[in-house]
Amino acid sequence: MKLSSKNLDARLDTVYDAIVLGGGMGGLSAAIYLARYGLKCLVVEKGRGRSFWMQDLRNYVGLDPDTPGRDIITHSTQQALHWGADLLRGYVEDVTDEGDTLAVKVKVGKKDSQYPIFRARYVIAATGIIDNLPQLEDMQNVYDYAGYTLHVCMICDGFDMWDQKAVLIAGTEGQINAAFVLNWFTPYITVLTHGLCTVGDEMKAKLADHGYPLHEAAIAKFLGEDHKMSGVELVDGTVIEATTGLINMGSVYHNHYLKGIEGLEWEGENLVTNDMAQTTHPRIFALGDLKKGLNQVSVAVADGTLAATQIWRNIRRASEPRKWIH
Amino acid sequence: MKLSSKNLDARLDTVYDAIVLGGGMGGLSAAIYLARYGLKCLVVEKGRGRSFWMQDLRNYVGLDPDTPGRDIITHSTQQALHWGADLLRGYVEDVTDEGDTLAVKVKVGKKDSQYPIFRARYVIAATGIIDNLPQLEDMQNVYDYAGYTLHVCMICDGFDMWDQKAVLIAGTEGQINAAFVLNWFTPYITVLTHGLCTVGDEMKAKLADHGYPLHEAAIAKFLGEDHKMSGVELVDGTVIEATTGLINMGSVYHNHYLKGIEGLEWEGENLVTNDMAQTTHPRIFALGDLKKGLNQVSVAVADGTLAATQIWRNIRRASEPRKWIH
Repeated sequence: MKLSSKNLDARLDTVYDAIVLGGGMGGLSAAIYLARYGLKCLVVEKGRGRSFWMQDLRNYVGLDPDTPGRDIITHSTQQALHWGADLLRGYVEDVTDEGDTLAVKVKVGKKDSQYPIFRARYVIAATGIIDNLPQLEDMQNVYDYAGYTLHVCMICDGFDMWDQKAVLIAGTEGQINAAFVLNWFTPYITVLTHGLCTVGDEMKAKLADHGYPLHEAAIAKFLGEDHKMSGVELVDGTVIEATTGLINMGSVYHNHYLKGIEGLEWEGENLVTNDMAQTTHPRIFALGDLKKGLNQVSVAVADGTLAATQIWRNIRRASEPRKWIH
Repeated sequence: MKLSSKNLDARLDTVYDAIVLGGGMGGLSAAIYLARYGLKCLVVEKGRGRSFWMQDLRNYVGLDPDTPGRDIITHSTQQALHWGADLLRGYVEDVTDEGDTLAVKVKVGKKDSQYPIFRARYVIAATGIIDNLPQLEDMQNVYDYAGYTLHVCMICDGFDMWDQKAVLIAGTEGQINAAFVLNWFTPYITVLTHGLCTVGDEMKAKLADHGYPLHEAAIAKFLGEDHKMSGVELVDGTVIEATTGLINMGSVYHNHYLKGIEGLEWEGENLVTNDMAQTTHPRIFALGDLKKGLNQVSVAVADGTLAATQIWRNIRRASEPRKWIH
């Protein structure tokens, strides 16, 4: 059932089988499986995650390639509720390891916030990442193109950039290296650093050798209309012609609530997991972009399947068998 | 483009980047990704695979739970063609390792068959498995219920059997052990062996202890109407009341064409793969039900993503970078 500040008291004494943190594609896959295993589960979703921003999902089997991420989220959220999952709109503040259970503190409501604590035998971390975007005074100008012709994922959208004039926007020198992968899709690449880093001579020489212009001035605004880029204007007045772009400025990982948990193995900001999406903590699973591996919707959805199945196995094996009393 | 006996000559001199054997959910996921990486790929599909038989797909994020497998296959096949994949209806006879390429011999056409050979740098084995069904004189009677209320996958459909009277149909004594997992969903289980195996005293005692009746006579027919089971009649005249059932009689693996390839590691009939769905042969990938792991659509779809991505990486890294000649 749908929980809110008005009815969440009803679940404060519940020990859930699993709490799924994050209601994106991976979290909802986990919730659908958990519910269909007959397990009690709660999905905590803050809203406006990475799937929400996807204007289309080009490469997921079964859906039209112009399906917006938000439509899939809405549809699958209804499915999870239909099969019996609980759902709460809220922000995960903290997770505490209590031994047999994990306690999840959630902030509910932006004004007069409540801070209820929910308990579960397992936690599935599916809160994902969010891509850093270039910060302009007028952020609406960025949102007008980001997710349409200005992409954040080369694997998802490289095909749609084929042989077009493209800008690569990088925030560090290391991030510029994406140019040497992006050139699989198009060689007409101009690199922009938005004034965020200095570029060493070696990288400058490599870019020059490939014929990829570099501009180190900050971006003033994206040009175009109807979500279709035509170029980028820099603060120094330069205008770069480009009908597409790739933003490669790193990501914010939504994993702060796990940083105090002992026994988790990290690789950078990614959690190390086994082939069932289980972390090195026996009661914590991690899906999709939060774990090591490819950041693709199909992978997150499979991770949700695996995590839910392993949790079901663990709980089932520890349960008394149901006999048929004739 | 769609290939057939009439136009396949046009591709006999092509060296594909990858040939995908099997156009189920995993194979089509791979094809969509390969095509969107700009790679030349061919999907060989014999038709009527496991997805084709799925009357509904209950647990896949983004689709209504009553979506038939065949609709998804049709839809995704169109997608793969749209992005540029080739598609051929045919049966994979044999794969030969030629070193830098693999040669795939396909049987095309049931009458006056042709046996063209296609070549590729990589092969993706996605031909899956097919579930063994109890063989009755009137197989239409089995098809009337299989995939509707008579299931073959507990993970997919256990929820829909909840607390119903169920038959478990097993072909070996080992397969009877599924009863002690199925009892998570319902304890009202009657075990049928369809006369295919003898059951030892220990298993008989365990079943009796759980209250699960065992019938060793062959099945005469399934009872019910409109795909809804009401029971099972045995050849000895016994009628068992049951509104659902699980067939657990093992599977046929469609992997014969790989049996002659050196360097592949098997675990039973499953191929051992790494975290990118790559087998122990550097040019052969395996997806979904053919590889070790959970037999779920979402897993096969993710495997397709991973295999295609690794193939793209391999090919890209071995290619000359595209420079911008101003």
